Amino acid sequence: MTHEIAVIPGDGIGQEVTPAAVEVLEALDVDFSFTEAEAGDAVKEATGEALPDETYELAATADATLFGAAGKTAADVILPLREAVGSFVNIRPAKAYPGIDAVRPETDLVFLRENTEGVYSGHEDRLTEDVATLTRVTTQSASEQLAEFACEYAGPESDHDGFTIAHKANVMRETDGLFRDTVAEVAADNGVDTDEVLIDAFATKVCLDPTQFDVIVCPNLAGDVLSDLAAGLVGGLGLLPSANIGPDRGLFEPVHGTAPDIAGEGVANPAATIISAAMLLEYLEYDEEAAAVHAAVEETLADGPRTPDLGGEASTTDVTAAVIERL
Amino acid sequence: MTHEIAVIPGDGIGQEVTPAAVEVLEALDVDFSFTEAEAGDAVKEATGEALPDETYELAATADATLFGAAGKTAADVILPLREAVGSFVNIRPAKAYPGIDAVRPETDLVFLRENTEGVYSGHEDRLTEDVATLTRVTTQSASEQLAEFACEYAGPESDHDGFTIAHKANVMRETDGLFRDTVAEVAADNGVDTDEVLIDAFATKVCLDPTQFDVIVCPNLAGDVLSDLAAGLVGGLGLLPSANIGPDRGLFEPVHGTAPDIAGEGVANPAATIISAAMLLEYLEYDEEAAAVHAAVEETLADGPRTPDLGGEASTTDVTAAVIERL
Ligand SMILES: CC(C)[C@H](C(=O)O)[C@@H](O)C(=O)O
Ligand SMILES: CC(C)[C@H](C(=O)O)[C@@H](O)C(=O)O
Repeated sequence: MTHEIAVIPGDGIGQEVTPAAVEVLEALDVDFSFTEAEAGDAVKEATGEALPDETYELAATADATLFGAAGKTAADVILPLREAVGSFVNIRPAKAYPGIDAVRPETDLVFLRENTEGVYSGHEDRLTEDVATLTRVTTQSASEQLAEFACEYAGPESDHDGFTIAHKANVMRETDGLFRDTVAEVAADNGVDTDEVLIDAFATKVCLDPTQFDVIVCPNLAGDVLSDLAAGLVGGLGLLPSANIGPDRGLFEPVHGTAPDIAGEGVANPAATIISAAMLLEYLEYDEEAAAVHAAVEETLADGPRTPDLGGEASTTDVTAAVIERL
Repeated sequence: MTHEIAVIPGDGIGQEVTPAAVEVLEALDVDFSFTEAEAGDAVKEATGEALPDETYELAATADATLFGAAGKTAADVILPLREAVGSFVNIRPAKAYPGIDAVRPETDLVFLRENTEGVYSGHEDRLTEDVATLTRVTTQSASEQLAEFACEYAGPESDHDGFTIAHKANVMRETDGLFRDTVAEVAADNGVDTDEVLIDAFATKVCLDPTQFDVIVCPNLAGDVLSDLAAGLVGGLGLLPSANIGPDRGLFEPVHGTAPDIAGEGVANPAATIISAAMLLEYLEYDEEAAAVHAAVEETLADGPRTPDLGGEASTTDVTAAVIERL
């Protein structure tokens, strides 16, 4: 069966790393049909729309979407795209790679970030000149859906041993309280072990010893900040992939941005996008191919060639060719 | 003029480290009158109230309050106490000390955390079985008051060179947008340099290189999480002090909790509370005495004696005596 893959390079280095990842996918024995679409600052400048309807529609109907990065318009692009695929969970692995400089090289974490609500689905009002409000929403149903996914991901059939629920229910008693209680209950019903941690305490503890955590399930904004914190521990956003999973489709994107300082120079590190493409393969159940891509990227990170961000002098094309050669 | 100092040890090691800090204050040539009051789990168990009215009143009228820690009731104690002193800013220095194991020993940051609003002044509702909401509030007036303080703290007359505004205004456009715009405007009016950073990007960047930041001004919950992250970089919460400043009074507390695992053993590290007491001295304009306490604690951290959390075998009393001897 042919899988329809939407490809949205976006702005800046998105234009370089996304084609690199597509090249890797094309080198595999998989039945993919690629369709490219525009989004981001450049198309907004040209047409007034950061996310043209055709692009939204494409992501909403393709089996999977590979997205690069967007500039100033990032929020206007990525949040609707996550909605287009109906994504209820954002999977954010943060793993240190051998040979890559990291303040905590023992880090190997996966964040399962709630991907639909909290302040992201919030309604904001400027009530008076002095007062603005934001109403954040937490539902039992979204918490349940995330928890069921987490139970599959980290339950007895997996390589993981349950998960940690990160929240701030000591202050947000109703909303984060509902989140925590619902997730814990679904886990208990499924025989999955959980423990819990306050997000502020997590921030301290993960720096002191990241090995005390494994899979972390958390509300939307907490997942945004805490996964970026973990990125700092493994040496930066440069190598971090992510997967936005919906009931019928997925959206895969590197966690990094458009890197305007190096965009256009052909030296962007394609690793995070290629690893995101490996997550896309996993999602479409090409498990062997996914494993091959993961291994090829790891070898390339360890032995080179390397782009300048990792202290090398190689180009995006060099690194991509090296990954393909190792497949 | 005699200053009235409220002393609220609270629970767990609060009962050990708070008297230690009072001992240090008593060893100085300052005109303080101390009054002790109860708060926390133990008094809740005994009376049903985690924060008795007398304790609230005492904090609301004393010139300064020294607080230790509270257990499960922490939020019920500390949030009203911050309100009792009318605190609009929580000052949280996160500095690595020579000789103390830290993943980023070059860390030297100060967080100025908005201390009255955001999700903390929020109103929560369980609307239906499925839906809970929290309305967070941001006001121009609170943002202005914080910004004016930040301009004094980090402006041209200070040792700092302006400050960084951390926010998530790309998603919370009205609320964090109002915060960011107001703080930036007050700073510009006062000739104070600022730059800005998204809180998720800050979490990555501060791990990669904390020296790129100095003073960080941020909304309430962001300040909670990001300052605890910085605590992780300097080796844990054990040494971090904090000051809640209001227009007429202040509340000083270590950032650590009750440490139930070691409470009652007489080996709690009193450093964070003693440094909080130094911030109290500064606040009451005993600048020389404050500097003396800071120096004595630093020497003691470097040369010992040390409590078990820092690899030593000394007791709380030993460390306190060593600090007093060095004054
Ligand atoms: C661009 C922004 C809206 C987005 C988010 O906050 O989710 C980004 O930070 C991310 O983590 O993908
Ligand atoms: C106990 C809790 C309510 C408190 C907070 O979130 O402010 C604590 O984490 C802190 O930072 O002092």
